[in-house]
Amino acid sequence: MTGRSTLNDLETPFLAVNQATVAANIGRLRKYLDELGVPLRLHVKTAKSLDVAALLHDEQPGSITVSTLAEAEVFAGAGYRDIVYAVGIAPHKLARVVALRQRGVDLVVLLDSVEQAAALATSRAGMAGIPALIEIDCDGHRGGVRPDDPALPVIARTLADGGAEVRGVLVHAGESYYADGVEGLRAAAENERQCAVQAAEVLRVAGHEAPVVSVGSTPTAHFAVDLTGVTEVRAGNFVFFDLVMAGIGVCSTADLAMTVVTTVIGHRLDKGWILTDGGWMATSRDRGTARQRVDQGYGLVADLDGNLYPDLLMSDASQEHGVLSLRPGSTAALPDLPVGTRVRILPNHACATAAQHDQYHVTEPDSTAVVAVWPRVQGW
Amino acid sequence: MTGRSTLNDLETPFLAVNQATVAANIGRLRKYLDELGVPLRLHVKTAKSLDVAALLHDEQPGSITVSTLAEAEVFAGAGYRDIVYAVGIAPHKLARVVALRQRGVDLVVLLDSVEQAAALATSRAGMAGIPALIEIDCDGHRGGVRPDDPALPVIARTLADGGAEVRGVLVHAGESYYADGVEGLRAAAENERQCAVQAAEVLRVAGHEAPVVSVGSTPTAHFAVDLTGVTEVRAGNFVFFDLVMAGIGVCSTADLAMTVVTTVIGHRLDKGWILTDGGWMATSRDRGTARQRVDQGYGLVADLDGNLYPDLLMSDASQEHGVLSLRPGSTAALPDLPVGTRVRILPNHACATAAQHDQYHVTEPDSTAVVAVWPRVQGW
Repeated sequence: MTGRSTLNDLETPFLAVNQATVAANIGRLRKYLDELGVPLRLHVKTAKSLDVAALLHDEQPGSITVSTLAEAEVFAGAGYRDIVYAVGIAPHKLARVVALRQRGVDLVVLLDSVEQAAALATSRAGMAGIPALIEIDCDGHRGGVRPDDPALPVIARTLADGGAEVRGVLVHAGESYYADGVEGLRAAAENERQCAVQAAEVLRVAGHEAPVVSVGSTPTAHFAVDLTGVTEVRAGNFVFFDLVMAGIGVCSTADLAMTVVTTVIGHRLDKGWILTDGGWMATSRDRGTARQRVDQGYGLVADLDGNLYPDLLMSDASQEHGVLSLRPGSTAALPDLPVGTRVRILPNHACATAAQHDQYHVTEPDSTAVVAVWPRVQGW
Repeated sequence: MTGRSTLNDLETPFLAVNQATVAANIGRLRKYLDELGVPLRLHVKTAKSLDVAALLHDEQPGSITVSTLAEAEVFAGAGYRDIVYAVGIAPHKLARVVALRQRGVDLVVLLDSVEQAAALATSRAGMAGIPALIEIDCDGHRGGVRPDDPALPVIARTLADGGAEVRGVLVHAGESYYADGVEGLRAAAENERQCAVQAAEVLRVAGHEAPVVSVGSTPTAHFAVDLTGVTEVRAGNFVFFDLVMAGIGVCSTADLAMTVVTTVIGHRLDKGWILTDGGWMATSRDRGTARQRVDQGYGLVADLDGNLYPDLLMSDASQEHGVLSLRPGSTAALPDLPVGTRVRILPNHACATAAQHDQYHVTEPDSTAVVAVWPRVQGW
């Protein structure tokens, strides 16, 4: 298919990725963090693609974060040796961790409680020789221990007693996805940093080396102004960006590198609807912008060249149908999109939309020719 | 893996399907429609599984509905010869339709406008010899023409002039998913029937044979009391059912045949949270019950034997994390679920949750042994 298909003849719906936009997004963040003197550890959970990671790492395997052991295994197979598995480890998953480490991968696990540390130490595989990061909670978003929680040094001690290596701390400012504006984003980044550094200091006072102080989220990575004490920044969404990130001011809609291409299959002009063959199976059910100031429905709508139709939204979805209509209150005219017209949907949440597909169709600027097909890692 | 794995040792998250419950759901609807004298045309879009379809068709290929041409191609490969593609056909997809018909498959397409009929007739593949159903709108839910729309006979004429076969009409009472209670469901079913029969009559008066009068949705299929004039009923969700269907009274939670198995990885007892390794990647972002009287979050929570924990919901999700907590206002105690405990999540929307996975792990009653692994059709 490579080099012969175009966005005009592939079977819809499908994912289109603008390679130059991905490269620009990667270049921008790498430059920003280079100036702050901290390396970027790509989170591969968004793209789940060796080809996307290669754009960051200049074709050489670098340091990555994964959300599943399936990602770790695929990237290990491609030569990646420096991997953080950033979801709290379930005891039964240690056997796969051990197998990867025996292949020479420095795979690091995550946990956040004494109970979990004890369960890991006494599990069948055990924790002997396995490096662990302790998850720190900086904003009440999800898991993690607070840096001043007396459990923190007990977790570290339990790990060390079980033969594990206390590699350090990991913080994810999940609430930064709900920040808005520069000041809020900067504050979220500084809070993330302070919590991480404080927690690492607790571990060092308790006698652990804790060399790694890992922070990150796409919003905080782009708005940190000081990363003193931090040893790495994790981010993943930024490779594609999405409408949620645009909504909080981390990017503009022009930075969105991934869209869903769908075909118009009908009209209900009495209702102001244009129907397409791209439903939630193609976009996901994610409606992240519903919580933002501007609700973008299931996504904004552009032509194949990327020009947005004014006020046109994908306003509703069933499994294999999309409904396009004007934003409520709009005075724009419904565009004339005859049956067979192809449009691009700019998604709410790149991670969720990408997960509905098994590959990306890659284009270069000012062309609809597909120059590559990039597969995605599937499953767990 | 078959016959050796159990729900206790498979990698979480994964889909578990209770085969006896699927068989009971199928048997119930088949008996109901047998008594009404109308055949069931299974919609395979929910399960996307040859194995599930085989339970309805007694291992012999029967009549099915598909939501993608990928489904049509996989089922055709397994011997299915009677297939309705129930999404409005995009002109560029006719080539695949023709290829399937050349393999001996009676594949029927759907459309709902003069514009579309004309675009199909003049497309590269053309409509010569292709049977088409005209989509009828009975409740304003999505696409289709009203049975009294003057466009209806024009669509049929345009099809006939293009050499297509006017096979009949197809109606889907999409709004029945928002009905509630027996009377509302019966009214939706009767309205669906009346619209279909009225539209078919319009076509027959205009000189078309229109032998097929196809209706269906899981809610209306279970509540129709008279199907006079209808030649087939389509339904798909009922093979698994889900919390949305339970919420409108089409089934009980005991009828839910498919669950997501996840593992507890931590606790935030200060917040009343139990954390699992099953996030929206495993359940989908579908929150269909949010619009119902009782919001079930991302799902109800049961133990591996299927016993529901009182008032426990999967209340929040990130990509690979689930949060379990008590229903707001509950006086129940948070159950003691140590790290490593496995739970089942009963999903909002079976079609969307199943779509996050590529296979089902199948069990029999009162056993956690996996007796079969059923693959799902992927993509478009």
